[in-house]
Amino acid sequence: MGTDIHRSLLTDGALDRLHTVARVDTTTTITTIIDASPAEALRLAHAEVLFTHWGAPPLTEEALHRMPRLRAVVHAAGSVKHHVTDAVWQRGITVSSAAAANALPVAEFTLAAILFSGKRVLDIARAYTRARRQPDVLPYFSGHGNHHRTVGVVGASRVGRRVIELLRPFDLHVLLHDPYVDPAEARALGAEPVGLDELAARSHVVTIHAPELPETRHMFDARRLGLLQDGATLVNTARGSLVDTDTLTAHLLTGRIDAVLDVTEPDVPPADSPLYTLPNVLLTPHIAGSLGNELGRMTDWAVDEVARYARGLPFAHDIGPEELTRSA
Amino acid sequence: MGTDIHRSLLTDGALDRLHTVARVDTTTTITTIIDASPAEALRLAHAEVLFTHWGAPPLTEEALHRMPRLRAVVHAAGSVKHHVTDAVWQRGITVSSAAAANALPVAEFTLAAILFSGKRVLDIARAYTRARRQPDVLPYFSGHGNHHRTVGVVGASRVGRRVIELLRPFDLHVLLHDPYVDPAEARALGAEPVGLDELAARSHVVTIHAPELPETRHMFDARRLGLLQDGATLVNTARGSLVDTDTLTAHLLTGRIDAVLDVTEPDVPPADSPLYTLPNVLLTPHIAGSLGNELGRMTDWAVDEVARYARGLPFAHDIGPEELTRSA
Repeated sequence: MGTDIHRSLLTDGALDRLHTVARVDTTTTITTIIDASPAEALRLAHAEVLFTHWGAPPLTEEALHRMPRLRAVVHAAGSVKHHVTDAVWQRGITVSSAAAANALPVAEFTLAAILFSGKRVLDIARAYTRARRQPDVLPYFSGHGNHHRTVGVVGASRVGRRVIELLRPFDLHVLLHDPYVDPAEARALGAEPVGLDELAARSHVVTIHAPELPETRHMFDARRLGLLQDGATLVNTARGSLVDTDTLTAHLLTGRIDAVLDVTEPDVPPADSPLYTLPNVLLTPHIAGSLGNELGRMTDWAVDEVARYARGLPFAHDIGPEELTRSA
Repeated sequence: MGTDIHRSLLTDGALDRLHTVARVDTTTTITTIIDASPAEALRLAHAEVLFTHWGAPPLTEEALHRMPRLRAVVHAAGSVKHHVTDAVWQRGITVSSAAAANALPVAEFTLAAILFSGKRVLDIARAYTRARRQPDVLPYFSGHGNHHRTVGVVGASRVGRRVIELLRPFDLHVLLHDPYVDPAEARALGAEPVGLDELAARSHVVTIHAPELPETRHMFDARRLGLLQDGATLVNTARGSLVDTDTLTAHLLTGRIDAVLDVTEPDVPPADSPLYTLPNVLLTPHIAGSLGNELGRMTDWAVDEVARYARGLPFAHDIGPEELTRSA
């Protein structure tokens, strides 16, 4: 993993638990395999389980060659795309990920964004700050409020499914688009299955939870962004590349739609981007995923997985090669 | 009701339903009883059910004297404190209120505020806007995140109970203070019962759902506000008078705590109040309750109640005199 992360990740409590189920050397965080020091190379040569996190080096064929005893990779974070390669599965190494734990805070961020957008909370707060007297809020509420609004969920990923689940207590109608989910399953989740164009046209809030793949690049392109209703809100906590940011920015500049963007393309908009200051945009720097005490949840999951491995049990959160082509 | 409200309240669909269960005269909205015109006085003299909303005139003994046939008051909004007097119950007039429907959006606003405060979403968005480059978010997350945080709910009112219910899917520990709820009932709701000082000292987020009563005025006074942890968030969607606003403002100016304030004392802060611009405050002009399409939910409830009355059934959302001393 990266050098900065292990201190907030491996709290004393988590380390104590890890020591009860494994022989762990935590004197150094290994950040490179190919260029490992002789002492690190010796540790890698004996490693049976890798405990990985953000910034882990890629587990290429060359890297794996230096870890002949490696049987498992336990990732105490979400996506394994940056370090797990096909070579890992080809060698029969099992992989566990805390992606499902990482989905929870993303879904929670999304839920709050949906509820606030329904009430136009941030728009009205800004108007109140400008006016410094009671603003006329009624014009803000034409067609707004969280009663009988329609929320379109793009992608029944871990996050997308959790969002649908979290939306159940509310008087909101949920649409789902996911090419891998059949209509009966969508309905069982509590959503109405629709095509992506229909979702864009019917939703008051569209929230994107699709994976970043060649075929999903700019899935919200100029044509599809044009289908969004006036007054709609686009929420993106997935990947910036799923949306044509230039066209989205043009729509946002007209005030026709609102957006909550935790991710953009590029990752950090240029300093002169209107996204930083538009009153109808909430822009955050990729914080919806686990941060602060939420890292502890992923660590707990990962330590549990090492404990299962030590007892000879299969992983509870095993993932396979399809993860790299179907998930974020 | 007030003159402005009926158009957004009584949509054609709601009116059609009302006409099927009652003889309704909707040509005029009656805003005063004591000074009613002769034509209005005649309608009032025949009225058996009053359909009321925001801005309804007080139903004093003198007003009730002009409505000898009045049997029921159906309020298509939350609190009846502004128009229902003891004289109403003394005459045996039954009262129904959509307060439970109005509690839903308040609880939804509160939930979103709690989830966003856990992730410090608005603080970080502001820092990103200022920096126009990737900010270092790690310092924001010391002790933050929505995993194993503690939320203190002040008052098991309709809103407070709904907030506790909505918090169930999350990894949050809920404390409850309510002098009218015994410990077993608090635990059954899913909350740990505590005294108010303990709640203030242990909670990462304190959310106020207590009624406005002489004994609750400034329940968060200087001493109790001083008990809040550094980094805590105070959410007030109830009534401004429950908090000593001057002392709260002083704490907020130091940056020691954050606040989400949908209500303040006075209702609209003076134009030079720091509450309008402090980066650690989200200030909104009393919008957490029903607005926009959420009014339709209350109308639907009220029309259902008129329908029950017409069929000779008791109200589903009957309220009694204790409402005036125990609720907001």
